[in-house]
Order: sequence, then C-alpha cells, then structure tokens
Amino acid sequence: MPTFKLTIAYDGSTYVGWQRQASGPSIQSVLEGACGELAGREVSVTAAGRTDAGVHALGQVAGVSIDRAIDGRTLTRALNWRLPATIRVLGAVEVPDGFHARFDARFKVYRYRIWNAEVCSPFERAYAWHIPSPNLDVETMAEAARLLEGLHDFAAFRGAGTATGGTERTVFSSRVAREPGSKLITYDVSGDGFLRYMVRNLVGSLVEVGRGRHAADWVRDVLVSGDRGRAGPTAPADGLFLMAVGYE
Amino acid sequence: MPTFKLTIAYDGSTYVGWQRQASGPSIQSVLEGACGELAGREVSVTAAGRTDAGVHALGQVAGVSIDRAIDGRTLTRALNWRLPATIRVLGAVEVPDGFHARFDARFKVYRYRIWNAEVCSPFERAYAWHIPSPNLDVETMAEAARLLEGLHDFAAFRGAGTATGGTERTVFSSRVAREPGSKLITYDVSGDGFLRYMVRNLVGSLVEVGRGRHAADWVRDVLVSGDRGRAGPTAPADGLFLMAVGYE
Repeated sequence: MPTFKLTIAYDGSTYVGWQRQASGPSIQSVLEGACGELAGREVSVTAAGRTDAGVHALGQVAGVSIDRAIDGRTLTRALNWRLPATIRVLGAVEVPDGFHARFDARFKVYRYRIWNAEVCSPFERAYAWHIPSPNLDVETMAEAARLLEGLHDFAAFRGAGTATGGTERTVFSSRVAREPGSKLITYDVSGDGFLRYMVRNLVGSLVEVGRGRHAADWVRDVLVSGDRGRAGPTAPADGLFLMAVGYE
Repeated sequence: MPTFKLTIAYDGSTYVGWQRQASGPSIQSVLEGACGELAGREVSVTAAGRTDAGVHALGQVAGVSIDRAIDGRTLTRALNWRLPATIRVLGAVEVPDGFHARFDARFKVYRYRIWNAEVCSPFERAYAWHIPSPNLDVETMAEAARLLEGLHDFAAFRGAGTATGGTERTVFSSRVAREPGSKLITYDVSGDGFLRYMVRNLVGSLVEVGRGRHAADWVRDVLVSGDRGRAGPTAPADGLFLMAVGYE
C-alpha cells in the first residue's frame, strides 16, 4: 500500500483546527474524507503538527497510505478536486513505508503576523493579530527574539495545563522584522520542535517587550525561570502560520 | 451640515458590490446603515466609483454629510465600531460643502492580481484570478500593457451593453509585473477615469497575449478598432482592487 507525503496549505479561519473534533469541521476530517472517497474506504491522515483552531498553514505535511495505484501528481489533482478551496494539496510524493509525518519531522518553521495600526485592514482580519496601539518597538522585540535562539528549556512558554514531559527544544532562528513604513510586523521562528502554544506564547511575551513593559533581557529571565506564570499572554491563533516542515 | 470624505477599504467577496441592490448586502447599504445610526436619520453615501460584486477596495473614497458636530477621527472610530470587519473606514476628513466623491475625482488607481500556478493558494481564492496554466509570458504582457498608456478611445474595452457616451480616457500608467520566482502577477493601472468593466476587459486581453494567442501589438489593434467583440474576455471580479482615488 503506497504511502504519500502531502504538503498542504490551508486557511484555518473556518476550522476547529487540524484534529478531528465533534465541535465542527477540522482539516483532518475534511482531508480524510477526500482521501477516503478516493480510496473507497476509511483512511487516516497524520500531520506533522496539530495546528489549533484558527491557525493557518502554508506548508503543513501529512502522511497517508492509499491502497490504490496512483502517482503523486494525479493524487494531488484528485484531492484538490474533492477539497474545498480553503484547503489545497500543494504536492504529493511517494515515500517509503513507515514514514511518519510527525515522528520523522526534523524541524518546523512558523511565521506570526501582527498588524500594528489603529485600523485593521479588512484583508488581515483573520490573518494577523491586530494591535492598534502603541506603535510597537520592533528593534527591542528583535533583540529579545534573538535571545530565544539555541537549546533551551521552554517550559515557561508551554501551554498552561500541558502535561509535563520533555520541554527542551532547539530554536534555530528567531527573528522579528517590519518593512520600513509597513503596518505588518512578522515573527519568523524555526526549530527542531515546538511545545503546544509555544510560538503564540513567545509572541505574547515579545509583544510585552514591544509595548515597553519589559526590557529585551526580560525574555531570557522568563525562559530561565521556567515559570509559565511569568511569561506574557498567549497571542491569538489568527496570526500564526505553519510555513514548512523539514525531513531528513 | 458638515460633509466628510471617507477613505474606505473593503473585502468585496461577500457583497453584491458597492451599489445598494435587492439581491444582497452592498457596501453602500452597510455604510449608509452605520452612518444613519450615527446621524439618527437616513443618510446617503456617494462613492468615487461603484465597484462590482466581488471587487475589493483598499482606497475607495466616499462622501457623506452628517448633521452632527463630530470630528474626522471620532467619526472614523464611531463608524468602524458599527461596521463589520470586512469594511473599514481608514480615515475621514471634513471637506467643503459641495464636495462630490464621484464628479470631483481626478484619477483612480487599480490593481489586478493573477495567481499563475497549478494550485491556487487558499489565501488567494477570493483575491486573484487563478490561471493554472500556461506559465504566462509576463514580458510580452508588460509590453502590451504599455501600449495602453495615453489618451485613447477605450470603446473596445467597455462593458458589453454599456450605454454609449464618451469613451475617451487617459491612462497614465499601465504596468504588468511579476516578482522573480513568484506565482503572483500584478497589473497596476492608473488613469483619469475608467469605463465600466474596463480594467477587467484590459486584463482579459492582456492575458490572451500572455497565453501566446496574440502578439503585444494586437492590444493596440483592438484599441484602434473600437470593437468590443475583438477584445479578450472579461477577467473575474475577485482579482480587482480599487487602490486609490485622487482629488485636486
């Protein structure tokens, strides 16, 4: 039974998240439905990472085994034909049996978008965190973001109520930028893995720095403390995009 | 009674267009509703240009007279408070009595977006014309677009069935571009006025050139012929954005 690695983009704004849930349509359930139609039987699809409700993806990766002779290009077309326009398969390649989208992932890249202007663009209403004021101090945010790079225990930035477990991760790159004159601030972060809510919690803390409530160094103090209660609030889901997942 | 010039952005994908219609919600009806609530009476709002169903705006301009002592900043906030997130007032300035958003407009700037890749991004589904193939010849399209600059009779590019009248317009700038490696092609056009469907008809013809069906010069032949039947098809509304309206 051939296994495929799918690269997927989706607009998460009308979904309850990746994972199948009773409360509404999930990316997983819609994809499994399309794959199941093709295969003529129930099919399960496993993602590299379970994005939360409202989170978007430009490069999610999922694995699926389909008991049917089909090539990647035909599979891509057949799935896109069945999927709503809010979910697109960007590509499908056959991979060896035993491929696991989640366990085999070696790194992930996320982008978080902040719209920093009094009025939110109607085109950003579901794709950015709208912070009307103050004008965030992007230079100090960028300085703070750099302090997160490297191997650290990110316990302070895990989701509240997350089961304890290994909380050490390596962040390869952590950068905040704003194009001159732009209302859009982007936070690009890549690493070998992320705890649940970790990116949104990092952003919440970087914004506290950007508001001038703390110096850049404070982010390192929070990191070292391992105390979730000291970090900033969790940033909204809308601004978060899973950009890419890397494999060996 | 103070008159205000409003600058407005809207996501046109869920509206029947600018103009009030029985068939569904229009930008005008929603704005007039919000202004009417503020004024405590019926208010009429006049736009620089009546965008069609599905067309978007980043810089539409509208005039409204409100019988109430209020400054531009407060009006902006009060309207945005009442408007859905798909329509935003970007600013309001008081203008002399007799200001007319449509008749006083001196130029308009439009952008048309084309997504030229086999799979359409889920984030572009309502904001670009998806042309899966072929890979459009952007250089020749750009050459053809330049031929439209200047004072011409644009009768060949007016909407089919449009009442006859003056069809001469001056196009100041007409440019097609694609960032290297990008799937997005943009057409930026500015002029002293546009006939109904004119931008979408120009785009439809430029795409014929991009597909290799005609040489760049053909666009000039169509222009000179004045014959609507010779031009390309009307491009879909989704890709069109009214970017700005200029006044003296």
